[in-house]
Amino acid sequence: MRITGGELHHLVDVVRLRKGDEITVLDGVGGIYEVQLASCTRDVAIGQVKSHRHIEPPAVEVTLFVGLPKSDKMDMIVQKATELGAHRIAPVLCQRSVPHPSAERAERRAARWRHIAVEASKQSRRPFFPTICDLLHFDKAMGEFHTDLKLIFVPRVSLAADADKLKDVVGRNAGAKEVSIFIGPEGGFTEDEVSRAISAGAVPISLGGNILRTETAAIAALAIVLYESDIARSELDA
Amino acid sequence: MRITGGELHHLVDVVRLRKGDEITVLDGVGGIYEVQLASCTRDVAIGQVKSHRHIEPPAVEVTLFVGLPKSDKMDMIVQKATELGAHRIAPVLCQRSVPHPSAERAERRAARWRHIAVEASKQSRRPFFPTICDLLHFDKAMGEFHTDLKLIFVPRVSLAADADKLKDVVGRNAGAKEVSIFIGPEGGFTEDEVSRAISAGAVPISLGGNILRTETAAIAALAIVLYESDIARSELDA
Repeated sequence: MRITGGELHHLVDVVRLRKGDEITVLDGVGGIYEVQLASCTRDVAIGQVKSHRHIEPPAVEVTLFVGLPKSDKMDMIVQKATELGAHRIAPVLCQRSVPHPSAERAERRAARWRHIAVEASKQSRRPFFPTICDLLHFDKAMGEFHTDLKLIFVPRVSLAADADKLKDVVGRNAGAKEVSIFIGPEGGFTEDEVSRAISAGAVPISLGGNILRTETAAIAALAIVLYESDIARSELDA
Repeated sequence: MRITGGELHHLVDVVRLRKGDEITVLDGVGGIYEVQLASCTRDVAIGQVKSHRHIEPPAVEVTLFVGLPKSDKMDMIVQKATELGAHRIAPVLCQRSVPHPSAERAERRAARWRHIAVEASKQSRRPFFPTICDLLHFDKAMGEFHTDLKLIFVPRVSLAADADKLKDVVGRNAGAKEVSIFIGPEGGFTEDEVSRAISAGAVPISLGGNILRTETAAIAALAIVLYESDIARSELDA
């Protein structure tokens, strides 16, 4: 195995790995390699693969669409959603999103989020790195919204006052292999956005009476959907 | 109604409220008052209560015990757990807790967490402020561990490899009015701590295969337990 690039700087200059040391390499798509370094310079490390495992991908792939929040909150959302096991994370420019980064700045931020996702994957020993999408406009995100099950999280009192209970919805869709979660920015979705999401097939869901910050809603919704999907699928298999 | 103290400075000097303005006052134990200010100085504000509601407390009271984590992570945990609806938050000094604050510093930090909890309650319009306990040693926390249902979150591969599924445990204890959740610090609980918690009646629970940071585990576990308790109780009522 041959290792180059940004990770190598970390290994050589920060961790100070040397020839003979053993490292664990994740390829981000399920492969976990135990590697003994045969040579290691600043440009390239060559190692012998001592053992290799391939982890099956999770049964349910969850995409987290998040209305772009203020300041560095998206950093935390990317880190936490990666730990919990999101398959894909898509920051979305909503009507009430406060930041409107330039194309150049949006690109820099996406690069930063990809870096955070890789670091969080390593930290949590997660063999699948999530895909971090480029910043999407809400309309574009609606177009991307073609998973088996689509959930839009809304406050309890809203246009969608009859928000289904998550358990029932996930239970009815226990075979779903791909689930999308849509969380609003600070200030929430506009009524227009909720209507358009429902027209696009999304089911409105409420997380309870409390008003949650964007990052809290994103983490809680993802944790609950992954938990509930796991139960629904294990009941399907039984 | 008469308002004094720290909140008043905020109202007078920051929000710049004046006579005639209307404000919403939370008493922290379920009362929500709409108040019109009759007079307002830096020392005391007098207002007329225009309307008053009293919200029933949640059916399930969840206490979140968290192994004291490094740096300011506890700040975030207090904020998020308050938003989600924790009844009580107890920072715990575990064997693998890195910080060991002096009594004086522990007191200052508890005061800070109480302030964060009140701010988060206001932000999320939550009419119940959580109790923030003083920093407890693990042994003491075990003594406090006298709720109807006690859950200790452990990694999947651990002493408690047969960790029950949360759904079954909560379902079997659907009548529980008080639930405790115990989350380890960075590095997790020691085997000794897990054994002692189990001896004290705690049920070991796993949140899945990923290794989660303390703050991610605390937020995810609380969200899932509140969600699952809500379902279990609604099935009990049905």
